[in-house]
Amino acid sequence: MANDKKLVASITSRDEDFAQWYTDVVKKAELTGYTSVKGCMVIKPAGYAIWENIQKELDARFKETGVDNVYLPMLIPESLLQKEKDHVEGFAPEVAWVTEGGLNKLQEKMCIRPTSETLFCDLYAKDIQSYRDLPKVYNQWCSVLRWEKTTRPFLRSREFLWQEGHTAHATAEEAEARTVQMLNVYADFCEEVLAIPVVRGQKTDKEKFAGAVSTYTIESLMHDGKALQSGTSHNFGDGFAQAFGIQFTDKDNQLKYVHQTSWGMTTRMIGAIIMVHGDDDGLVLPPRIAPTQCVVIPIRQKAEGVLDKANEITAALRASGLRVKLDDSDRSPGWKFSEQEMRGFPMRIELGPKDLEAGNCVLVRRDTREKLVVPIEKAAEESAKLLQVIQKDMLERAKQFRAEHTYEAEDYETFKETIDQKPGFVKAFWCEDVACEDKIKEDTTATSRCIPFGEEAIVPEGAKCVCCGKPAKKMVYWGKAY
Amino acid sequence: MANDKKLVASITSRDEDFAQWYTDVVKKAELTGYTSVKGCMVIKPAGYAIWENIQKELDARFKETGVDNVYLPMLIPESLLQKEKDHVEGFAPEVAWVTEGGLNKLQEKMCIRPTSETLFCDLYAKDIQSYRDLPKVYNQWCSVLRWEKTTRPFLRSREFLWQEGHTAHATAEEAEARTVQMLNVYADFCEEVLAIPVVRGQKTDKEKFAGAVSTYTIESLMHDGKALQSGTSHNFGDGFAQAFGIQFTDKDNQLKYVHQTSWGMTTRMIGAIIMVHGDDDGLVLPPRIAPTQCVVIPIRQKAEGVLDKANEITAALRASGLRVKLDDSDRSPGWKFSEQEMRGFPMRIELGPKDLEAGNCVLVRRDTREKLVVPIEKAAEESAKLLQVIQKDMLERAKQFRAEHTYEAEDYETFKETIDQKPGFVKAFWCEDVACEDKIKEDTTATSRCIPFGEEAIVPEGAKCVCCGKPAKKMVYWGKAY
Repeated sequence: MANDKKLVASITSRDEDFAQWYTDVVKKAELTGYTSVKGCMVIKPAGYAIWENIQKELDARFKETGVDNVYLPMLIPESLLQKEKDHVEGFAPEVAWVTEGGLNKLQEKMCIRPTSETLFCDLYAKDIQSYRDLPKVYNQWCSVLRWEKTTRPFLRSREFLWQEGHTAHATAEEAEARTVQMLNVYADFCEEVLAIPVVRGQKTDKEKFAGAVSTYTIESLMHDGKALQSGTSHNFGDGFAQAFGIQFTDKDNQLKYVHQTSWGMTTRMIGAIIMVHGDDDGLVLPPRIAPTQCVVIPIRQKAEGVLDKANEITAALRASGLRVKLDDSDRSPGWKFSEQEMRGFPMRIELGPKDLEAGNCVLVRRDTREKLVVPIEKAAEESAKLLQVIQKDMLERAKQFRAEHTYEAEDYETFKETIDQKPGFVKAFWCEDVACEDKIKEDTTATSRCIPFGEEAIVPEGAKCVCCGKPAKKMVYWGKAY
Repeated sequence: MANDKKLVASITSRDEDFAQWYTDVVKKAELTGYTSVKGCMVIKPAGYAIWENIQKELDARFKETGVDNVYLPMLIPESLLQKEKDHVEGFAPEVAWVTEGGLNKLQEKMCIRPTSETLFCDLYAKDIQSYRDLPKVYNQWCSVLRWEKTTRPFLRSREFLWQEGHTAHATAEEAEARTVQMLNVYADFCEEVLAIPVVRGQKTDKEKFAGAVSTYTIESLMHDGKALQSGTSHNFGDGFAQAFGIQFTDKDNQLKYVHQTSWGMTTRMIGAIIMVHGDDDGLVLPPRIAPTQCVVIPIRQKAEGVLDKANEITAALRASGLRVKLDDSDRSPGWKFSEQEMRGFPMRIELGPKDLEAGNCVLVRRDTREKLVVPIEKAAEESAKLLQVIQKDMLERAKQFRAEHTYEAEDYETFKETIDQKPGFVKAFWCEDVACEDKIKEDTTATSRCIPFGEEAIVPEGAKCVCCGKPAKKMVYWGKAY
């Protein structure tokens, strides 16, 4: 099999050069392709099929909470982008401008949306008059453009796909509840579907979204110990409403500003799947998101009965709702095994003449390589069970990895040494002064990832800022990040 | 009820002012909204939900034929757009140009895709080396931009949503077969799902796509007698392959150019649904595409048992797979009836205290207003049946309308008079000279819609061009078009 592997491709070892390993996996698993358009990627069938499953799962969860999908223009007139001061400062440096259309120079230039707060505000200002028009809970699936200087497939590219939810509410309480609700939708989705554990928390003022009162985030940990911001949910208070004049007549007949939120998740999550679960043989896809969950590989497929039975097994798995395919091409079984591993299909079923004689087939897990011999007539049932076990085990392993790579630091020397020597999260207290955040970033390149929710956020009496030693006000997750 | 109607909105009569009627329906049914971005539209929840159903139905049909979904960049560098001569001539005048990005002037300007042939060719030139890499049958769902001067919601807007399929094949025969196959997918989808009958045929050279060898089209007829091009499928031969250098080594070890196709359908089809099926009370949605197929409306809902039973009926319909909602708001039943009619939900179920006492409920069709009294316990079963009948009847009515509005003309006077006096298709022979097409367009504003497939395309001996009287070579459908 070692020899067969070269038929597929050899990839850089993950522990040797993580960045090169990532690039190799993305390329060899045919998730993306290069293009003549600098900083942009082509998402190929194997990559796009993962995104389709992400969309399907997330969209169903959104709709359960009452979200309506809409579509707004991809262009934003300059004057509209400039209406909210913090927002334009945050985004103006990284947008692309359309200045000519239909052979003429435009009177007012327009940018390609980097995000659509301003367009939703423009819509809400027209459509909201009364408390009866509230809440508005809209979402759109689209692509956005940000003029990044250095790019990497899925993790940072000039154009990327995402969903952006934008809501308007009658009260501050309702907006806050929606902000938290959507963060939890993201967190549950990551853990249940992608098998990626996340830390839920709040961004510091320095790291929050341009124009937001507060930004909530979920942070996940990659295999190289770097953090990845995996989804954010923003509470805007009534700041945008004031800038755009979004007012409604409430039940008490008073004219009031609405309270707004926005929240987004992107194709970056495909990068997270790769970096959390992948190994030296390639991609490892969690069963719930894998476009192909199982591949059936006949051994000596010209031997009597083998291909027929492989077809039967495939049909049985498909009938029980699994996403399965049969590889009856003329390539060698070893080549097919390596390909299944490279592409990250969660399991394969091997079936040869000897298995057939014994009435068995062999289930092989992608994540652990464990083999399970089962009676052919139980192939579908056992595969369904096995996929559930794989899904659960992948989450457990990722949780364990994160636990083993989450550290604490009480003094600055330990903090700096940990960041430098031990890739992972570092939990440490902070005085809430942006100067300490700046210093930490300058000294270590680490940033504050989030102030976690719940018990672990409690700051005990006498706790001191890890950087300046002054009284601490917050417990913070720190880390180097993508 | 006449009085209640005003609670919803009054719309212009369809036969009085079709254009205004269309605008009213789009607005009052809340399908689109206006925006500060000139020539672009906001697709609101009621409109976007129709598009989601179109996507779901079409995408499943695509995948059955082996289509893989992908995503390519939204920007096209100028040099890439210019590689194929006819193509750039066709599209350059109507694109929007990005000239600045990230605060800098770009070295090479890029247009926002008006269509993505050039990007797919760029990808295929990199990814296709051998016959083993063929065929490529890719599709993407995205938005495109064309700098239109006059715009109307769904029918013509600067930005619109669509899918664009792009394929590459080893032989001319295979490319031709795929071009025809996808046209038939579109035609079947229109007739089976949208209840819109279409004429399948070929575009004349004057009307074909920029860069294509041949363009196939499906043409539908709107209620005002104007034609709507509803989907097109193009065979490019090896023209793009030569311009972009897309070559492969075939089984015979010869280096050959691939043969390509592309095919697309857009949000314009929502405009077609409105203009084929709508009436003076608003939208009429075919059941198979309607986001809400049935609304349950309780009458005197505070009377004992009414709301409970309405809930039961709603649950029963939902359990049987129908898209149903209950309107238990405090608005009057008359208001709810008008709203159901305006929004085009295919049927409603009325249930009041008297019905309850008799153990019945009332099914009301949107298309014919017919009422059907059925036992409450049969509501789900009868609704499912009724929706099938409505779907079938809507297609039949549209077919009959088209038959009644399709004319023939043998001489130019009759032709001009028919085009002028009788809105609809006119079938007439043509010599295949573009000069006659130009003259017809100048004299009547009508254009050649297509040269139909099948028996009706046969040109009998002695047939003459309706315009110049020279021997005819083709039978053509003519009409004024959107």
